Amino acid sequence: MDTGDVPSEVLPGRATLVSVAEAAGVSRQTVSNALRAPGKVAPDTLERVLAAVEELGYRPSLAARQLRTRRSRTLGLRLEHWGGGISGSVLDRFLHALVDEAQDREHRVVLFTADDDAGEVAGYDELLTTAQVDGFVLTSTHAGDGRTAWLAGRGVPFATFGRPWPDDDAPAGPAEAAHCWVDVDGAAGTRAATEHLLATGHRAPAFLGWPAGSGTGEDRRRGWAEALDAAGVPARERRELAVPESTAAAASAVAAALEAPGAPSAVVCASDTLALGARGAAARHRAALEVVGFDDTPVAAAIGMSSVAQPLAEAAHLVVDLLVAQVETGGAGPPQTCQHLLAPRLVVRSSPA
Amino acid sequence: MDTGDVPSEVLPGRATLVSVAEAAGVSRQTVSNALRAPGKVAPDTLERVLAAVEELGYRPSLAARQLRTRRSRTLGLRLEHWGGGISGSVLDRFLHALVDEAQDREHRVVLFTADDDAGEVAGYDELLTTAQVDGFVLTSTHAGDGRTAWLAGRGVPFATFGRPWPDDDAPAGPAEAAHCWVDVDGAAGTRAATEHLLATGHRAPAFLGWPAGSGTGEDRRRGWAEALDAAGVPARERRELAVPESTAAAASAVAAALEAPGAPSAVVCASDTLALGARGAAARHRAALEVVGFDDTPVAAAIGMSSVAQPLAEAAHLVVDLLVAQVETGGAGPPQTCQHLLAPRLVVRSSPA
Repeated sequence: MDTGDVPSEVLPGRATLVSVAEAAGVSRQTVSNALRAPGKVAPDTLERVLAAVEELGYRPSLAARQLRTRRSRTLGLRLEHWGGGISGSVLDRFLHALVDEAQDREHRVVLFTADDDAGEVAGYDELLTTAQVDGFVLTSTHAGDGRTAWLAGRGVPFATFGRPWPDDDAPAGPAEAAHCWVDVDGAAGTRAATEHLLATGHRAPAFLGWPAGSGTGEDRRRGWAEALDAAGVPARERRELAVPESTAAAASAVAAALEAPGAPSAVVCASDTLALGARGAAARHRAALEVVGFDDTPVAAAIGMSSVAQPLAEAAHLVVDLLVAQVETGGAGPPQTCQHLLAPRLVVRSSPA
Repeated sequence: MDTGDVPSEVLPGRATLVSVAEAAGVSRQTVSNALRAPGKVAPDTLERVLAAVEELGYRPSLAARQLRTRRSRTLGLRLEHWGGGISGSVLDRFLHALVDEAQDREHRVVLFTADDDAGEVAGYDELLTTAQVDGFVLTSTHAGDGRTAWLAGRGVPFATFGRPWPDDDAPAGPAEAAHCWVDVDGAAGTRAATEHLLATGHRAPAFLGWPAGSGTGEDRRRGWAEALDAAGVPARERRELAVPESTAAAASAVAAALEAPGAPSAVVCASDTLALGARGAAARHRAALEVVGFDDTPVAAAIGMSSVAQPLAEAAHLVVDLLVAQVETGGAGPPQTCQHLLAPRLVVRSSPA
């Protein structure tokens, strides 16, 4: 990109490298040397430059570093459209953590939006063309995810919050999985929730999840099934409900299950949204139902519902770490040191009767 | 800022204005002319340039426009730290709307964070020094807000989501209020909520709000009081509760009021968080209490609670409009055309018994 004729004064009166150079009567290169390699500059020249820096209030810190390193110190992220649910807030909380962690490393986060993967890739392309980002953070990884190959093929630094999920048709080879990622062990979360319910007297906790085909959903279902396996709960006693991600539908499905003979006394849910639906259905049927959600949204805390909490700050910290390391070294490092599966935490609450 | 020596090739192999110029054997200016003023370029030269654009896969759209206008097409926003409550999601929803609206105008949003106003101003300063933004969006306006004066004094384009709130000690003069802003009429929202409750048979709906000193809180309280004034509800029948913004505290305060003789049958709340606390307290006391919240968070929809909805998409649309207009014309326009108080909407729901 031709940036040779960008005006040196961005705002009237703002101190820049150029205005410092003019005030000190030296070249821009000399100002640059004075700030980053003062030993190269004659003492009286150095003094004159620093006096001009002081007088004009020039803030060389980030600007100088950007010039020196030729980096934007900006990470790109597609912000998904607002989904309307309470579970969408998990990615918003991740964004808050990401901006905090990026700022700790003197980086900012630039947001764009897109309707789908192809639109997201077009967004990458545009940001790279205009040279405004050093790398990208990706969320919502899924089977058949073409975004990572596009970035990897162009040598663009990136890290995903979410592991690569294999395609049903074509399982991911080592090449596809070789990028840096951070994810939360969903199966460990639902396993802990199910074990807790078994330990507190529930014979066969049910599972309320999404329809098949979601990697995240399958992962969370697996933890529940593994805990029942370990406890020796026979298949005929297992109740598993899969509903579309919608509160009303979730409530209806659970309502039907609650009217059936031998209804479960507890249910492990793939999200707090589903859990809220299950609680609503139980309240309408005046049934006692212990419900554990997933994601520990603020709603779970507000209504006193147990839920599985994702370590979002730790995830954001690692994502920024992995990304900045790639930008600084020019390489992603060996996969085994740049792939992190984090343990979630079961938050047990007892709601008011 | 000295950008004269930024490398023309940002990524290996990426097409740029320079690589197109080299491939076509012309100057960068000629490439630029070919893309924005083809009439200036000889037909055979134009053909050569366009062939190089095609061959290299150069995407001139946004990059060319940025070069032409010397604008970053990026808006800056401080993302507040995650607050943990369910009401904080309103600003997250505003952010989603803002990124959508900005993208419709071919702008992106860059986020930074800060602990307070001073830190936010330092963030402005840094982004302006590195020339990465055209202007700023501000949220959470408050009494004694020094951010707007800092930006106005430097001629930096900005718009606030939130009106300027007067200082208790020194009411804002016309100069302070002369900037562009968009806000939602909170008083109109609580007035509508109170009128709805009066019309459905509640004699004297109570108000549950925050402690004095919050402009937003006072605004929402005022609408309730005005509706009771209009309905002729005497002062002795009015119940007003102010609690810290915390679910547990809110619930306790309301619980105490519910045990008192002549407890109110309905309450208008300054936020959905407070409303959730009020509902929880009522449930524990097995009291019938009609509750209306504010902000229409996804929780209100999930549990079937009435709430006042802010028109966030419209607010984001206007904020982007006001900001882009300033950047493009270099002026903020007359205040009366750049200050918008939007009407909220009461969403009536009846929760399951």
